[in-house]
Amino acid sequence: MKPTNVNLNENKSAVVILDQTKIPNEEIYLELKTAKEMYDAIFELKVRGAPAIGICAAYSIYILAKNINADDYNEFLSVFKENKEYLNSSRPTAVNLSWALERMEKVVISNKGKSIDDIVDLLEREAIEIQEEDIEMCRKISELGLSLLEKEDGILTHCNAGPMATSLYGTALGPILLGQEKGYNFRVFADETRPLLQGARLTSYELDKADVDVTLICDNMASIVMKNGWINACLVGCDRIAANGDVANKIGTSGVAILAKYYNIPFYVLGPTSTLDMGCKTGNDIKIELRDGNEIKEKFYKKPMAPKRVNTYNPAFDVTDNSLITAIITEKGICRPPFKESLLKISKK
Amino acid sequence: MKPTNVNLNENKSAVVILDQTKIPNEEIYLELKTAKEMYDAIFELKVRGAPAIGICAAYSIYILAKNINADDYNEFLSVFKENKEYLNSSRPTAVNLSWALERMEKVVISNKGKSIDDIVDLLEREAIEIQEEDIEMCRKISELGLSLLEKEDGILTHCNAGPMATSLYGTALGPILLGQEKGYNFRVFADETRPLLQGARLTSYELDKADVDVTLICDNMASIVMKNGWINACLVGCDRIAANGDVANKIGTSGVAILAKYYNIPFYVLGPTSTLDMGCKTGNDIKIELRDGNEIKEKFYKKPMAPKRVNTYNPAFDVTDNSLITAIITEKGICRPPFKESLLKISKK
Repeated sequence: MKPTNVNLNENKSAVVILDQTKIPNEEIYLELKTAKEMYDAIFELKVRGAPAIGICAAYSIYILAKNINADDYNEFLSVFKENKEYLNSSRPTAVNLSWALERMEKVVISNKGKSIDDIVDLLEREAIEIQEEDIEMCRKISELGLSLLEKEDGILTHCNAGPMATSLYGTALGPILLGQEKGYNFRVFADETRPLLQGARLTSYELDKADVDVTLICDNMASIVMKNGWINACLVGCDRIAANGDVANKIGTSGVAILAKYYNIPFYVLGPTSTLDMGCKTGNDIKIELRDGNEIKEKFYKKPMAPKRVNTYNPAFDVTDNSLITAIITEKGICRPPFKESLLKISKK
Repeated sequence: MKPTNVNLNENKSAVVILDQTKIPNEEIYLELKTAKEMYDAIFELKVRGAPAIGICAAYSIYILAKNINADDYNEFLSVFKENKEYLNSSRPTAVNLSWALERMEKVVISNKGKSIDDIVDLLEREAIEIQEEDIEMCRKISELGLSLLEKEDGILTHCNAGPMATSLYGTALGPILLGQEKGYNFRVFADETRPLLQGARLTSYELDKADVDVTLICDNMASIVMKNGWINACLVGCDRIAANGDVANKIGTSGVAILAKYYNIPFYVLGPTSTLDMGCKTGNDIKIELRDGNEIKEKFYKKPMAPKRVNTYNPAFDVTDNSLITAIITEKGICRPPFKESLLKISKK
């Protein structure tokens, strides 16, 4: 397995990504060479998952910087900034996109005295470092998560926080894939995750490929598999963690957490400390993205699945109350309630 | 609106049903003449909804009885029983199927002395009676259900227990459609109900047609609409009610009930006493139908939405624990906890 599905090609002339919109039916790798190709890949979700987007943006702006035909530093910086703004506008909500681009820009600015060739080399090094940090983060989270599980556990997961969305083993899928390598016998249930079916298209694909025993279910079947006694732990990723431990993640996550509480099953959130937003006091401060209702009514289907004029409500995320969460697993350690204290402590590490 | 969407054709040679699998895109009526056509119509959900299946089974076995070419009563009874067993095997969970067929068989058995022509006439009368009772049942349930609601209530419903699944206004949708006629201003949220999308295809279609304010959501969005404070009551139908009040209904119903409990929202089950199975002590005695996994992986979609070899688990129903149910509304009255007593009382009415 490659450490990430976002990499440079051999002669460092393009970013190579796995086109996630074609999974599970085709495995197509795309070479992104122009700014337009890079922008479209992010905008059209060909590359998705916050960490993967960050890595893609870092490599992209490095490739673009390499091709800048500038007479001096100021001209170079000016074109660099143009590229940065353009890429950054592809998906304004993904925090890792702007975070990675900011990091790359800092390299250019803090090395003003050096030659452009040297700066370009440093940009490559920074992009590689962003990727390597992500790999290390995923390794840590996978190990910490695995320490909470038993060899024969049944595991429920929602949406996709696996290798395609991150690096290495992923976050929520990390302990599962690491466990698989170590000979664990997990039995995983993957929620399909409507409306965009990341669980069906990506999670079941990734786990199946790694020969993990995975069973695909519809979101509304989570209750019955828990009742059947098949689930020992729930593992989910996260998009933002508030200071009190409320967690924004893919729509439906809060429902899974309430069911887990009812059936007395541990509910674990796995994600890097970069998703921890200490400026957000509670989940109420997190804005929930509303998406096009045709994702519910039309997308993917052969025929419209509801009357055209019917109203829809299509939130992309929901907030899981901290009272429903057993532990939040980050690369710096495992946080347990009271989260206000444990998260504060870890944010200072 | 016709009182039901299952009827005899004019010359009584076929059962006419609205093909529910074609809704909302086409309104196609099918004539069922052979046992195979009848079996397939139920198995393939062209006719679905516990009461509608019961009516369809009654008319079907009448049509088949009419065509039995028997020399004497015993031969007639023997073929009748064959037909009954065949139709009865089309779907296991909804009790109304076997209940209607049992009623029809009783007509044959208790009229042994009469001519076959007379028995066939009595079978027609019995089938019509089953249908008329269903219409009356739906009227009562709608009125009783409406008495539990306020004029501006937000209502969540799962799957479809409307006019197509039953008679008249339906059961779970009954209070909504009756309220609409009386000038109530309900705001209804319809779970799409994966995998076969009865909520999207049928419920949103029926409510939209009646000009009810309906908003379609994915199943995993029930938690967020409850959290938003938009839901005052949940209304669902039922396929079988055990003596202790455990209720089998469309997969996902138990999850909605757990969410409702968590958010402190009343959870109402609406259904005829014919779905009450006093022989079933608890929900553990109810057989849950497992369906083809391709309903999750392939059906409806333009392209396969998961790897072909991935395991699936596709239960059509689940059991909602009686502790999660606020009240069960039948045509004979409203049952409240302790259900063991209130259901016993109503079963003797």
